[in-house]
Amino acid sequence: MSQLLSSPPMAVFSKPFINYKFTDARFPSSHSILSSGDFAGKIVPLKPMARLKLSVKSRQDDYFEKQRFGDSSSSQNAEGSSPRFYVGHSIYKGKAALTIEPRAPEFVALESGAFKLTKEGFLLLQFAPAAGVRQYDWSRKQVFSLSVTEIGNLVSLGPRESCEFFHDPFKGKGSDEGKVRKVLKVEPLPDGSGRFFNLSVQNKLLNVDESVYIPITKAEFAVLISAFNFILPHLIGWSAFANSIKPEDANRLNNASPKYGGDYEWSR
Amino acid sequence: MSQLLSSPPMAVFSKPFINYKFTDARFPSSHSILSSGDFAGKIVPLKPMARLKLSVKSRQDDYFEKQRFGDSSSSQNAEGSSPRFYVGHSIYKGKAALTIEPRAPEFVALESGAFKLTKEGFLLLQFAPAAGVRQYDWSRKQVFSLSVTEIGNLVSLGPRESCEFFHDPFKGKGSDEGKVRKVLKVEPLPDGSGRFFNLSVQNKLLNVDESVYIPITKAEFAVLISAFNFILPHLIGWSAFANSIKPEDANRLNNASPKYGGDYEWSR
Amino acid sequence: MSQLLSSPPMAVFSKPFINYKFTDARFPSSHSILSSGDFAGKIVPLKPMARLKLSVKSRQDDYFEKQRFGDSSSSQNAEGSSPRFYVGHSIYKGKAALTIEPRAPEFVALESGAFKLTKEGFLLLQFAPAAGVRQYDWSRKQVFSLSVTEIGNLVSLGPRESCEFFHDPFKGKGSDEGKVRKVLKVEPLPDGSGRFFNLSVQNKLLNVDESVYIPITKAEFAVLISAFNFILPHLIGWSAFANSIKPEDANRLNNASPKYGGDYEWSR
Amino acid sequence: MSQLLSSPPMAVFSKPFINYKFTDARFPSSHSILSSGDFAGKIVPLKPMARLKLSVKSRQDDYFEKQRFGDSSSSQNAEGSSPRFYVGHSIYKGKAALTIEPRAPEFVALESGAFKLTKEGFLLLQFAPAAGVRQYDWSRKQVFSLSVTEIGNLVSLGPRESCEFFHDPFKGKGSDEGKVRKVLKVEPLPDGSGRFFNLSVQNKLLNVDESVYIPITKAEFAVLISAFNFILPHLIGWSAFANSIKPEDANRLNNASPKYGGDYEWSR
Repeated sequence: MSQLLSSPPMAVFSKPFINYKFTDARFPSSHSILSSGDFAGKIVPLKPMARLKLSVKSRQDDYFEKQRFGDSSSSQNAEGSSPRFYVGHSIYKGKAALTIEPRAPEFVALESGAFKLTKEGFLLLQFAPAAGVRQYDWSRKQVFSLSVTEIGNLVSLGPRESCEFFHDPFKGKGSDEGKVRKVLKVEPLPDGSGRFFNLSVQNKLLNVDESVYIPITKAEFAVLISAFNFILPHLIGWSAFANSIKPEDANRLNNASPKYGGDYEWSR
Repeated sequence: MSQLLSSPPMAVFSKPFINYKFTDARFPSSHSILSSGDFAGKIVPLKPMARLKLSVKSRQDDYFEKQRFGDSSSSQNAEGSSPRFYVGHSIYKGKAALTIEPRAPEFVALESGAFKLTKEGFLLLQFAPAAGVRQYDWSRKQVFSLSVTEIGNLVSLGPRESCEFFHDPFKGKGSDEGKVRKVLKVEPLPDGSGRFFNLSVQNKLLNVDESVYIPITKAEFAVLISAFNFILPHLIGWSAFANSIKPEDANRLNNASPKYGGDYEWSR
Repeated sequence: MSQLLSSPPMAVFSKPFINYKFTDARFPSSHSILSSGDFAGKIVPLKPMARLKLSVKSRQDDYFEKQRFGDSSSSQNAEGSSPRFYVGHSIYKGKAALTIEPRAPEFVALESGAFKLTKEGFLLLQFAPAAGVRQYDWSRKQVFSLSVTEIGNLVSLGPRESCEFFHDPFKGKGSDEGKVRKVLKVEPLPDGSGRFFNLSVQNKLLNVDESVYIPITKAEFAVLISAFNFILPHLIGWSAFANSIKPEDANRLNNASPKYGGDYEWSR
Repeated sequence: MSQLLSSPPMAVFSKPFINYKFTDARFPSSHSILSSGDFAGKIVPLKPMARLKLSVKSRQDDYFEKQRFGDSSSSQNAEGSSPRFYVGHSIYKGKAALTIEPRAPEFVALESGAFKLTKEGFLLLQFAPAAGVRQYDWSRKQVFSLSVTEIGNLVSLGPRESCEFFHDPFKGKGSDEGKVRKVLKVEPLPDGSGRFFNLSVQNKLLNVDESVYIPITKAEFAVLISAFNFILPHLIGWSAFANSIKPEDANRLNNASPKYGGDYEWSR
């Protein structure tokens, strides 16, 4: 059945975002410190089929999955981990709705007790066509993940400039490469009063060929840019570094440092 | 009696801002994820009369209300909730004063233990006419709530551009629609040295028809824009998300994720 | 004796900045929510003489004062209050040095347990003339306090624009009014490669008439602007408000709110 | 042996960055509050040889060092200090890779319990030449440390402007002065679509003369600028100050302040 809601169904949001596994070839390996290390080597070959299976699950399955993992996620909080936040910023227009939600970066713990960024965060864009007055059909939504560099592109976009991002979820994943093609276009409105966001998806595997348009006013775009500039340092992990700056620690370790100094202007 | 104070009377501030229920049709439902879900459906029809009753209360009533709820609010802190902060930023001029104060977004807790943004925060503008040297009559103040998109409008306003916001507290609330009309205009000063803020209110229910003007220098406006850019990510809940990024958590859950991954570039 | 140091002597820094009482008439009362309330009324008349006595103390006195209050300040930390940070950002040039240090805003606790901003923070500029190679005579320093609006002025200053701030510590303080005059000028360098900061002080009470010039490169100025934009929301207390946004709290109080809602678009 | 990795070998990252001792004469003493105090005097003369020894250690030595100090660093965390974060932001291109990582400022504790910034943080740039498809030879990397002012230079760089930074690790360190010369150039790409980063290193001590070029797109540069603007207030310690603003403290101390007030507009 197709759902008519003004906002993405909970089932979508209730999937713990940290389950996210990265599959878009467009996301530069260049954004993953370990990208071509054995870590990445290990997981990449295993994913495609799993992804495919997951991807054709119906919303209902998502709902069941939610039930299934509900305990684990709440117990997570019992474990004292910080609660998750769903903060999709939505823009609703006559013919479509757009919800933009940040996704956290990923870290691994090192033996030393330090943490290393292994994957940058991103922005998940969800486009849903209208299905009535203030009703949107989220069962027909199309999604697009904006990488940090693509965010940088939007943030530095001149008032009369356009940009286009091409994603192929199967790029470099063998026979399905090229069968799914997503294009996000951001263009100035004719009267220069704002921007047009257009996501078009060609999916030959499911015989889907859709295009969603949504006009973004200058004011709405300003909100997005302000929010993007805010979130960017968090997506690349620099805020985690910044929050770890503790004068007390620094001080203690400075005293120790003469013991084994280093020269960062000198590498060999 | 009318109070002559250089700042809004405590009674105004001492109303816990989280009591705020949103009633301005101008505030885009598009900014509320649950806007046309049953959650909103439940509370909206009940409010209009309550609002009207509240709205005609005198300042004195506010004062009593303050007394009434004083304990509960202090006990809140006893309960370990974070204390409230009143941080109105004020600009005082010869003929009027303007105080701008941020209002926090609202969240709901989900069974999973996660939190979901249900209402974006906003900025409360309070205009009071002068009543003597450095004296302002806050009993005659007029207020205007700036939504996130309206903030975006101001933040992106060119030095020679103007903007205008129309609010009708009763829009879509039946017979009173159109009886109260608020217009906030922001225009460049003739000599381009700053801006004019003008709030005009026509209230046919109370036979009020007022207009408050206050000139804002370029420097004062720069402070506002800097403050607006800072607060915006907090109003849309993105800072709450950002603060919840805990490498430790992410790391633990990353290990679990291969079990039930997801592909966000794929929706059906 | 006059001290030759490359940085402000500890004695200066070691005075707990929270001792700061505001005496510069240039600091707009418009920046103090309680400015013309009885609170301000109580303390202002008492200060001038005390200030005068303090102001003529020699550095040595400062040193003794440091010793005297050393315990109290460390015991403060024992009391679990957050430690103080001295983070003067310094620019050293051939003929003078400039150190800029933020000063925190002030709050009062309300019966309700909430906090109210009573005084905005500011930036303390300290200019010291050179007294040799990389030696600066901080005993001859001149200071200037930048208010939030003055910071807004600098932040919005065009590359070819100038600005000038006039301070009279005794303005409106009776017979000494006009006897001390401070002017801070910021002008573009002839070749447009940066800015000139010039502080001139005429003090008829001490027969002082000095002027300190320091050139700031475009890059150094960019650092200042970036730092000023960062600190501004902290100086007006908005970051304290932002940090107090706790979804958990908001959530609990939201449930309560239908009991006694309010309409902020409606004031009378 | 030379390592072919797409990212800096762990050995590099696993050296606790707080071991960093500052040796680049380009880093303005003017950025160190204590620069010409005895503190700096004590350590500078001792370093050069140590540095030289360290600098010629092979990666393997780094690895052993890592093992040696692994315990101490993990025990540090056991001591409850905040964990370290490795958040290098990387840009990988055909001929070279660039990783940029922030380094924390340093503080000293004062008897009073307060903290004083003694050294500003910086950005460590690491350039590695390509050694195959998505393979980079980090054993041949060249590093460059960007000071706060140099960051300000990049942040304020016009779209068609260039800049150049010269570093001599031995400047003012005697006979080796001038024997190592590093130049970082940032120039607009011919078509104005981005920037060229070029690091050239002449090391007469090791007969090294290398130059690494890497093109940075407009979008990638926008990400860097956004990240630089974010991190800058942390590098100069202003965020540590900002985080220490506690209304509760301020309030208690305000009450005490009339006892021993001060006038910051008055210095002698």
